[in-house]
Amino acid sequence: MRRRVRLSLVALAGIAVLGVSAGVALGGKHHSHTWRVSHDLHDNKPKNVIFFLGDGMGTQEITAARYYQYGAAGHMNIDNLIFTGFDKTWSLKPGAGPNYLPDYVPDSAATGTMWSTGKKTIDDRISQGPSTALNVPGSNDGFATVLELAKKHGKRVGDVSTAEITDATPAVLASHMSNRACQGPTDTATTCPNEVKGAGGLGSIAEQEVDHNVDVILGGGRARFEQTIGSGPDSGKTVVQSAQGQGYQYVTDANGLANVTNSHKPVLGLFNSGNMSLEWTGPPASLGAGNSPAAKCGTTNRPANEPSLADMTRKAIQLLDNKKGFFLQVEGASIDKQDHAANACGQLGETVAFDDAIGVAEDYQRHHPDTLIVVTADHAHTSEIVPEDATGTSIPTGYSTNLVTKDGQTIRMTYGTSGFGGAGQPPVSAIPSQQHTGSVVPVWGFGPGAAAVLGTGDHTDLFDTLRGEDH
Amino acid sequence: MRRRVRLSLVALAGIAVLGVSAGVALGGKHHSHTWRVSHDLHDNKPKNVIFFLGDGMGTQEITAARYYQYGAAGHMNIDNLIFTGFDKTWSLKPGAGPNYLPDYVPDSAATGTMWSTGKKTIDDRISQGPSTALNVPGSNDGFATVLELAKKHGKRVGDVSTAEITDATPAVLASHMSNRACQGPTDTATTCPNEVKGAGGLGSIAEQEVDHNVDVILGGGRARFEQTIGSGPDSGKTVVQSAQGQGYQYVTDANGLANVTNSHKPVLGLFNSGNMSLEWTGPPASLGAGNSPAAKCGTTNRPANEPSLADMTRKAIQLLDNKKGFFLQVEGASIDKQDHAANACGQLGETVAFDDAIGVAEDYQRHHPDTLIVVTADHAHTSEIVPEDATGTSIPTGYSTNLVTKDGQTIRMTYGTSGFGGAGQPPVSAIPSQQHTGSVVPVWGFGPGAAAVLGTGDHTDLFDTLRGEDH
Repeated sequence: MRRRVRLSLVALAGIAVLGVSAGVALGGKHHSHTWRVSHDLHDNKPKNVIFFLGDGMGTQEITAARYYQYGAAGHMNIDNLIFTGFDKTWSLKPGAGPNYLPDYVPDSAATGTMWSTGKKTIDDRISQGPSTALNVPGSNDGFATVLELAKKHGKRVGDVSTAEITDATPAVLASHMSNRACQGPTDTATTCPNEVKGAGGLGSIAEQEVDHNVDVILGGGRARFEQTIGSGPDSGKTVVQSAQGQGYQYVTDANGLANVTNSHKPVLGLFNSGNMSLEWTGPPASLGAGNSPAAKCGTTNRPANEPSLADMTRKAIQLLDNKKGFFLQVEGASIDKQDHAANACGQLGETVAFDDAIGVAEDYQRHHPDTLIVVTADHAHTSEIVPEDATGTSIPTGYSTNLVTKDGQTIRMTYGTSGFGGAGQPPVSAIPSQQHTGSVVPVWGFGPGAAAVLGTGDHTDLFDTLRGEDH
Repeated sequence: MRRRVRLSLVALAGIAVLGVSAGVALGGKHHSHTWRVSHDLHDNKPKNVIFFLGDGMGTQEITAARYYQYGAAGHMNIDNLIFTGFDKTWSLKPGAGPNYLPDYVPDSAATGTMWSTGKKTIDDRISQGPSTALNVPGSNDGFATVLELAKKHGKRVGDVSTAEITDATPAVLASHMSNRACQGPTDTATTCPNEVKGAGGLGSIAEQEVDHNVDVILGGGRARFEQTIGSGPDSGKTVVQSAQGQGYQYVTDANGLANVTNSHKPVLGLFNSGNMSLEWTGPPASLGAGNSPAAKCGTTNRPANEPSLADMTRKAIQLLDNKKGFFLQVEGASIDKQDHAANACGQLGETVAFDDAIGVAEDYQRHHPDTLIVVTADHAHTSEIVPEDATGTSIPTGYSTNLVTKDGQTIRMTYGTSGFGGAGQPPVSAIPSQQHTGSVVPVWGFGPGAAAVLGTGDHTDLFDTLRGEDH
């Protein structure tokens, strides 16, 4: 959103009136795009903000999910978000500073810090600056996050993910840490010893999320919260016990979550010891011509005691809804994780579940138009949709899977950003973790202030957008 | 652009007035995004339309060009186009009809037919339907193209490309052909014998472009026009001679083009016997760790007697500018061709040249705000930006090149959609043609009607947008 403001005068008020009256006069005829956009432009500050982060969900990933699940002509919930744009996601390389060099292929911690705080940092850093001096006692330069600012303004706040809720994306909202690995107290004592409370630090990511008094925390990562705190006021307690001591309602399965009705006390829901279970399963990727004939994904992998992302989103909105408004972040985390694993069905199922969760927010928004919905990815990823009729050297060099779409047609997905076997050797047969890619990511929005996502911007711009500051 | 029209009422007139008055009152302070979008929304029909087609220019390609040439914080001309969206590009598979199945990875002929005519067709088909019965005498079902309709409405029309001007993209505007290969008379006699004039057909793509009396035709492909017409009224003449007989001014180099001043006679400029020369050269892609140290591209490959795409765009606009308006198509064709060749520098140089040409149109638009600019790609492509520090199995399986960007940092690009060497074998060392990919493509716009590109749509929607019909 860097373009110069143009001086051409547009009689906008007149356009709006013309647009509306033409629409009314024509009765059933559909409205022009311009009319729709005019009609859906809000210049108000949103009361509620619901932010969806599809981890690694670049344009290839969202398109593959569309074609597989809904077919070429199908409709996704995300299509209802008509304000669309592109964000650059470059992060910083570690260095002496104060001028840091760009890293064109970032990780989720650095990009999370961008949208959550409006500032660039290095990979692995959680809402802190790029300085190498950070992981020493007393050096915390924690950047204010959009969740912290919402809370300061009296709004309720929520943080939801299919990953461990201490993973990078949920972490950037309610913690400040030099290394994303420092998720639980034991992890922090080992990897970030200067950031435990006894050393004057803020404690592990799990502790900080609880200490932030985030109203709704839902996701995986129970094992992190079952680690014992080694120092500070709650020394000797697990993070779960610390949370309960601070008034949290604690639930560990879908029934428990469904039964939470008290929105006056915060909720901690941890539904898996690690990441939450995948929605879908399917054939592993293979080198060469790929599995044949093309397969359908299995869609019943998630156990019933784990809520879906849509379930968590619905409950979070229900608990957060209040007169002063709320900020909620919802992450579809395993789109990325299964893209890394070259697991096409895993990736597609998580993308479809993410779109389902977006649908829940849209249902709420229809009755609460003072709600801003923003959806984006934190970085692009490896998967590509390639022609199905691969033969000879037209076969991709990497790992591929053929699947049968809603249309009954084959979609071929390939993953080739990791796996080289050495000079003159084929790629290794055990699939190594595929890599993030550096493309701009798509952004979608709807509601008051959504026009801010239009055009080509930077992921740091989202900080203002999510605060409802339309700059 | 499929979302339901919402019923929430927005006092748009009020917003516009508030936006403007706040802007004026605040003097130097910058305006909100919403204000800018409101301000730049036009509901008028554009007088002029300039359409840019970056062949194969998906999000990875535009981002790589940005980082290489302008650096992470750099500004591109395309960034001035603040109306942005995503288009699906699926084409049809050949079949008996009338219900055709989707092909998720299309070619440029099918996608060109989409934006040029608003209709889906099969790959290789030029502005005609998918029927297998087409390539027989008298069966032409040519779809009306946006160029033909502009001409019918008294506008001037132009068609510019860095490819042979008979290649798929320029062809879809001013010809109808069952097979994109039938570019010149000899090609057509061989491959589409039922479509030569003597068989009752429309003649080769080259002949049809001339017969359409397109006011400005600029690009490569001279050899196609030097083929001799075998039947019909101009039998025995080359297509160049046929064009001259129909009043065309004919030029073959940059000086010749610069000296054209008569805008009352049509212009045929053919600056290379095949595709126009690449702007840039650089190190070939390699398997494994890639070239090291990272290199800079050579930027002086195009000979001085071939005009740049920006030069052709500037001249075309100058010749087309008139009271009734014009339609101009400008293709950056070799973004795609060098992506196929896994030639990173070739691809980047063409993308930068394409952005330069967009800048020329923006300069014109600033003084002619009744001009709509739309930019898109016809399909996504293979290249990906991956982490630079590739070692061990973190090395991509395909062909990679390391380059040094404006920031002085390494950008690593990889191409892995073709090249498998067989089970247990490494990819082949001679790089085979890389493949298109199936992602939605980015769309950018500015000017009257540009709001039509917002959201997630289909490439066929562009037909209305380019006609200035805001549906």
